[in-house]
Amino acid sequence: MELTHIEHLGIAVKSLETAIPYYEEKLGLKCYSIEEVADQKVRTAFFKIGQTKLELLESTSPEGTIAKFIEKKGEGIHHIAFATNSVQTCLDELAAKDVQLIDKAPRKGAEGLNIAFLHPKSTCGVLTEICEDPKKK
Amino acid sequence: MELTHIEHLGIAVKSLETAIPYYEEKLGLKCYSIEEVADQKVRTAFFKIGQTKLELLESTSPEGTIAKFIEKKGEGIHHIAFATNSVQTCLDELAAKDVQLIDKAPRKGAEGLNIAFLHPKSTCGVLTEICEDPKKK
Repeated sequence: MELTHIEHLGIAVKSLETAIPYYEEKLGLKCYSIEEVADQKVRTAFFKIGQTKLELLESTSPEGTIAKFIEKKGEGIHHIAFATNSVQTCLDELAAKDVQLIDKAPRKGAEGLNIAFLHPKSTCGVLTEICEDPKKK
Repeated sequence: MELTHIEHLGIAVKSLETAIPYYEEKLGLKCYSIEEVADQKVRTAFFKIGQTKLELLESTSPEGTIAKFIEKKGEGIHHIAFATNSVQTCLDELAAKDVQLIDKAPRKGAEGLNIAFLHPKSTCGVLTEICEDPKKK
């Protein structure tokens, strides 16, 4: 299993309309895409810095996981996503090492990536995603 | 102001002895350094993945900021650190844009970096560090 770099960081925000100007006007980054991921009940805004994307996550429903995260912990970094060449290979290897998985097989995430989440119980509290870009396979 | 990449992510853990084996044995990363930063009341363990380091943070005191963070929010990602060529230039520019600063001038952090923190009140909830490597100047 090889994790090559941090593909993105998911950051829970109350409002994209407030957060995007912070990242653009204060930090000098550029929002290159806004996308709704309906089945995750989020609107996302993407920035790139070096190898890594910042994915701002705004809940589209009070029942969504991002709304619940903010209710419990406040705004902040929600998850880390590592890039790999094969999500399924990683999942099989992690399961064999007794890492608890949220997804046993890859599913589609934002930007067309194949993604899977590991359970924070097995990852020292960090919600962890692994992902691959099918266009690079 | 130019932020070039994510220099590191600070991750609050209860115990390095538990967390290091997770990152090494499950994720396949390699801990290359363990360092105590006395004035921040932490022991740190460093890993590298792509351009970015993961800095695990274990509190050395129940009064430390990491112990308090874990008490309030649980283990998880504590801060994001952006790399820049001049921390002081960034601080001056951010202050002029009404970003609230924790440090008005750079101070020494782990690995000999010059660092400064911005206040989460001004950063949509993300504790944000900017840092420069004086060896690269």
